[in-house]
Amino acid sequence: MGKRVALVLAGCGVFDGSEIHEASAALVHLSRGGAEVKIFAPNIEQRDVVNHLKGSPTEEKRNVLVESARLARGNIQDLAELKASEFDAVIFPGGFGVAKNLCSWAVDGKNCTVNEHVNSTLQAFHSAKKPIGLCCISPVLAAKVFPGCEVTVGQDKNVDGRFPDAETASAIAELGCKHICKNVNESHVDKANKIVTTCAFMCKAPLHEIFDGIGTMVQEVLKLA
Amino acid sequence: MGKRVALVLAGCGVFDGSEIHEASAALVHLSRGGAEVKIFAPNIEQRDVVNHLKGSPTEEKRNVLVESARLARGNIQDLAELKASEFDAVIFPGGFGVAKNLCSWAVDGKNCTVNEHVNSTLQAFHSAKKPIGLCCISPVLAAKVFPGCEVTVGQDKNVDGRFPDAETASAIAELGCKHICKNVNESHVDKANKIVTTCAFMCKAPLHEIFDGIGTMVQEVLKLA
Repeated sequence: MGKRVALVLAGCGVFDGSEIHEASAALVHLSRGGAEVKIFAPNIEQRDVVNHLKGSPTEEKRNVLVESARLARGNIQDLAELKASEFDAVIFPGGFGVAKNLCSWAVDGKNCTVNEHVNSTLQAFHSAKKPIGLCCISPVLAAKVFPGCEVTVGQDKNVDGRFPDAETASAIAELGCKHICKNVNESHVDKANKIVTTCAFMCKAPLHEIFDGIGTMVQEVLKLA
Repeated sequence: MGKRVALVLAGCGVFDGSEIHEASAALVHLSRGGAEVKIFAPNIEQRDVVNHLKGSPTEEKRNVLVESARLARGNIQDLAELKASEFDAVIFPGGFGVAKNLCSWAVDGKNCTVNEHVNSTLQAFHSAKKPIGLCCISPVLAAKVFPGCEVTVGQDKNVDGRFPDAETASAIAELGCKHICKNVNESHVDKANKIVTTCAFMCKAPLHEIFDGIGTMVQEVLKLA
């Protein structure tokens, strides 16, 4: 039987929701790995709605669960209903929505608060020793909730201009966690905590390399599950 | 040098825009194929905005170009600006947005009208003998604009309940085109017209099979380019 995996979204669109290609890549790799996937998102208002053409916020209001349903083709549930006992693993794709809607990292950095259902989901999988997969900016959720864990968001320096947000690695270290430098096509596995991370769009790389990196993350998660 | 490919979007979300996973899959395969991709969408209001959680239309107004920018991570242009002379091929992912925003197939079926910029784009690539790739419901664009062409939208019968929209094949035949039955992991190449089609989500299949089928379409397009 396939591994039962919960995927948690944060909206639909890199600047105010889940990064679309990261979420899609995770779902493709989970499908290939024979996983049974259910998709969740918090039923809350988005922190903001960004016009992705102009890159600027609008006056609109949108709901994280309703917009995430676009990525889920309608097949999605309120994160408040997620029972860790019914799953073998959980995966969080990235995107600014993670730092805006799942926690307040986008405004508060390492002093951020984490959405209560995101927090309880992470705690439930962790305490049941079930693997947690995260990519892009999502590893900050693990860094905030599990001090001392090991994660990667890519490189801790802006190597070749490919890691413009390299200072995220320092913030993770300030939270008492260990940042592990990895390339876009690699994942880091924190075996003690069963946390698997890959940098995805934190690296300016061709899309297929990001896709493959997310593949390594999904495969490690399925192995640990 | 990589092939220059234009990708044309119709919004962001299966029920009122481009099917997200089809668009993402096409971009992953184009990236792996070394293509230089530019993304376009018409600067028009969406025919409707569907709440993807409930599956029902809302009172909201959204713009096709602005919403497509979510899939393009902001890097997108008005379809009116697309010059076929600057590209080697064009690809149209599917989703209801194609049948609602790029043409009126969703309401008018084979009597549909095609958006003027979509029509001129298709005509320009076709007359320059440059390949056109389409998936899911997008092949109806080719069937409408190029009578006599060959396309696939999967099977012409609802085989094993996997092709619930099999009657689309009949409508294509009524337009004077030849519908070719293909499985989800295959493409059909109309060599005379340089039109490459695959059924994608017209088939109820696991996501990785749809991903791979879109891969065959992209690869055939790049070969013909």
